Amino acid sequence: MKKSLLALAALGAFVGAASAQSSVTLWGIVDQSLVSVKNGSTTLKSLDSNQLNSNRLGFRGTEDLGGGMSAGFWLEMGMDSSTGVAGGNVTGAPATQSLFNRRSTVSLVGNFGEIRLGRDYNPSFWNTVFFDAYGANGLGQMLNLSSSLGSGATTFARSNNSVGYFLPKGLGGLYGQFQVAAQEGPITAGYANKYKGGRLGFASGPFDVAFGYGITQTSTPDDYKLMNAGVSYDMGVAKILGMWNVSKFGAKELKTYEISTVVPMGQGEFKLGYVRADASGAGTDDNDANQLSAQYIYNLSKRTALYTTVSRISNKGKATFVMGGAVSAADAAAGGFTSQGYNFGIRHSF
Amino acid sequence: MKKSLLALAALGAFVGAASAQSSVTLWGIVDQSLVSVKNGSTTLKSLDSNQLNSNRLGFRGTEDLGGGMSAGFWLEMGMDSSTGVAGGNVTGAPATQSLFNRRSTVSLVGNFGEIRLGRDYNPSFWNTVFFDAYGANGLGQMLNLSSSLGSGATTFARSNNSVGYFLPKGLGGLYGQFQVAAQEGPITAGYANKYKGGRLGFASGPFDVAFGYGITQTSTPDDYKLMNAGVSYDMGVAKILGMWNVSKFGAKELKTYEISTVVPMGQGEFKLGYVRADASGAGTDDNDANQLSAQYIYNLSKRTALYTTVSRISNKGKATFVMGGAVSAADAAAGGFTSQGYNFGIRHSF
Amino acid sequence: MKKSLLALAALGAFVGAASAQSSVTLWGIVDQSLVSVKNGSTTLKSLDSNQLNSNRLGFRGTEDLGGGMSAGFWLEMGMDSSTGVAGGNVTGAPATQSLFNRRSTVSLVGNFGEIRLGRDYNPSFWNTVFFDAYGANGLGQMLNLSSSLGSGATTFARSNNSVGYFLPKGLGGLYGQFQVAAQEGPITAGYANKYKGGRLGFASGPFDVAFGYGITQTSTPDDYKLMNAGVSYDMGVAKILGMWNVSKFGAKELKTYEISTVVPMGQGEFKLGYVRADASGAGTDDNDANQLSAQYIYNLSKRTALYTTVSRISNKGKATFVMGGAVSAADAAAGGFTSQGYNFGIRHSF
Repeated sequence: MKKSLLALAALGAFVGAASAQSSVTLWGIVDQSLVSVKNGSTTLKSLDSNQLNSNRLGFRGTEDLGGGMSAGFWLEMGMDSSTGVAGGNVTGAPATQSLFNRRSTVSLVGNFGEIRLGRDYNPSFWNTVFFDAYGANGLGQMLNLSSSLGSGATTFARSNNSVGYFLPKGLGGLYGQFQVAAQEGPITAGYANKYKGGRLGFASGPFDVAFGYGITQTSTPDDYKLMNAGVSYDMGVAKILGMWNVSKFGAKELKTYEISTVVPMGQGEFKLGYVRADASGAGTDDNDANQLSAQYIYNLSKRTALYTTVSRISNKGKATFVMGGAVSAADAAAGGFTSQGYNFGIRHSF
Repeated sequence: MKKSLLALAALGAFVGAASAQSSVTLWGIVDQSLVSVKNGSTTLKSLDSNQLNSNRLGFRGTEDLGGGMSAGFWLEMGMDSSTGVAGGNVTGAPATQSLFNRRSTVSLVGNFGEIRLGRDYNPSFWNTVFFDAYGANGLGQMLNLSSSLGSGATTFARSNNSVGYFLPKGLGGLYGQFQVAAQEGPITAGYANKYKGGRLGFASGPFDVAFGYGITQTSTPDDYKLMNAGVSYDMGVAKILGMWNVSKFGAKELKTYEISTVVPMGQGEFKLGYVRADASGAGTDDNDANQLSAQYIYNLSKRTALYTTVSRISNKGKATFVMGGAVSAADAAAGGFTSQGYNFGIRHSF
Repeated sequence: MKKSLLALAALGAFVGAASAQSSVTLWGIVDQSLVSVKNGSTTLKSLDSNQLNSNRLGFRGTEDLGGGMSAGFWLEMGMDSSTGVAGGNVTGAPATQSLFNRRSTVSLVGNFGEIRLGRDYNPSFWNTVFFDAYGANGLGQMLNLSSSLGSGATTFARSNNSVGYFLPKGLGGLYGQFQVAAQEGPITAGYANKYKGGRLGFASGPFDVAFGYGITQTSTPDDYKLMNAGVSYDMGVAKILGMWNVSKFGAKELKTYEISTVVPMGQGEFKLGYVRADASGAGTDDNDANQLSAQYIYNLSKRTALYTTVSRISNKGKATFVMGGAVSAADAAAGGFTSQGYNFGIRHSF
């Protein structure tokens, strides 16, 4: 899924004209799970997508421009394979259908790094993915305990109209990226997403650490702010990941901590994760929660895996965090319920 | 269209790493017709898609897992090529755009058969396609005389969130499939589609017979039920197909019978079909209809064909069956009118 | 972008069966610009698509049928890569999402010419593209000064349900096409698009001239009519293009004249354009405008280019032409303001 899975050779009129050759990589993931989630008094059994990895279908390619430079494009749609729905709403413009909602960019790459234009991931999102053994998927992910704190900001993961800069490779382990995303319209409650953010990290051998931040304009005088840091160490018998994430909006703050681990076991791997959410401000001080989860993945091949996950969220105070599915109106009003679930699925990448 | 039309070889980083090779088959059909339909007093001339075969664009692939097992995915969108519209509404969730509305599945195949998860065809649909010389397309299809009997069920052809099981090959001609599809939400008039169904058949040489059934929950205490059976015999100079289909909802029942034939004629083929619909219950006893149709197909190649169809539906009582197009309010209220039409089109598959 | 960029070889069951081989060309363009536009008192800075070429992703192919005949299909979606949005509304049916909104056709080609069915460009559109150095894109295009004159016609560029005929090649430089597009529904203000049009041209060496016309039914007794002519001459050191376009609807008429030039400069090219719009009828006589623009393109390769454009529209009387972006209510009411802007972008085709 992060690999060049196929490349198409140019034929026809272009055979022999190497400079005009083009290649497109077509790749994707289809991931389907039987999921059972119980939120308070409500149980939902469903067939769901995205429980191990996010479903997608993409088209991308690069062109060597010579002199160490290259150009590239990346068009990637998300999917709910259980219904065939592809794409999703544009961040900040709910009425418009965005097909290539995961990423839609053109890039210029050189010794100076990479300039990337279009709809792309926010730098402040990456730490919450790379330093979570579950990434951004399923019953065990840290993101189950995240919140936009009522800010209306839709820039947690991605921004439209972004201009991004990535540091070049070969800086002795240092890596980083910076992004601004134009808001392109009046700042209203549903469209308040002018974003600025960055990420800086250092990786060496088994060790990786990174810091991220992001600031999003809202329709109020207050910005929605994200700060996070992650660290991982791969001991061989197990990889340990730690992550810390803070969201702020006005007087409200949500701190989330996670420690997770990935243990390779022959053709499979075993994961454990513990997340703690600590809310404060504006009468939310008691609305904390924690999540404990485990997952086992059995790889039938490099591309196809079977997996199962169990997870449990304990909400405190009036907290209403869930790992998916509906909540009854009574539970939503009272908060403090338990959300628990399990899944059993198959992930196939191509 | 049912064939693997192209497969893309893996290049780049994966050359030499056979186990990680990936292949995607990209295939489709574009079918356009000039269509003239007259329903009672209303005539419509149009450029239409799907008159010989359903337009589509798809992506699919399989991976050999060794040990007789394989994994695969299938993403297929429908299209109205005369307008460029692709996909359609999700069955049971009208507000959501489903791009891969024809099929969106992941499969695990082995000696045990096939497990298939996602949006897929219902078993009870297949007999109405395979034992009709017209399949599920155009002016002559049996489906022109079908009805959901006011049940609100949208599971005639496909279900979201389905779990399917297919018998393995090599059972001496026996074949079959079974499916359950989660309803995933409150049972309302527009979203009442928990489905269970199956299909069992036997094929040997020129002979093929199959039985199918399907039960769909509705927002009423009554289920919407389908039962059907089909048989075909290929005599060489002609293939004869017979089909019987019953829909039931509460006191209402609609029985449909069809006999059709395909006669090969050099590069072309000639089809004839006769369908009879027999309604009963809840004051609909007189609302019967019959349809008589003929079609000639001239194959310019295996992939490209020209075709023409003529068809006539005679509605009895208050029946209002049509082969497409609009009906005037007066005709719709009175029923019993004639629907007739012809088309002339081209079908190109790739 | 107008080239066969890749063709996929048929493998698997079809190796050795040349007659059944299939090939699909997958191609596209991603074009992103930083754009600043000031319309009267309103300034908008944005990241925009389509400023040098229209973004697209397409699938197409042809099949040799022997005897000088071939069949082909063409499915091409437009994109706004800055948001990932693909496709657009169907001309004349705003509520329906058309994915392959740029073109969705099937063709039969022979010595007789080409018959093409589906959603396609209108003949009367092509002169406004081919005889404008800017084509149909960006701050300098003639189309910034075009109008449907309140007719509601949406057939300026494309029609659904079209049947087109193209003259064959080899007529001594003569070329041409004719099209009718069914309206397929009641003629209402939002759905009034029965179209008939044609285009006839002559090209020889550096010289090219063409005439076009188009008539679109509207919900009023009046038709919306387009007539245009273009001529170009390539002197080597520069190509000069001239174009004249008239729109008529009832008493209203808009005449537009353009002269533009493309000057090759090593790996780059320089463009200049001047457009004049002359409105008349129904109290619009004074609402004229002119546009002056310049563009420089630097080709990093045949597929990838950097570019920058500057342009200025001077509205007279109550004219409100803009090159994109919003206008304040006061400016829109008063008219006669200036619209000016610049962009800096990258275009990558594949």
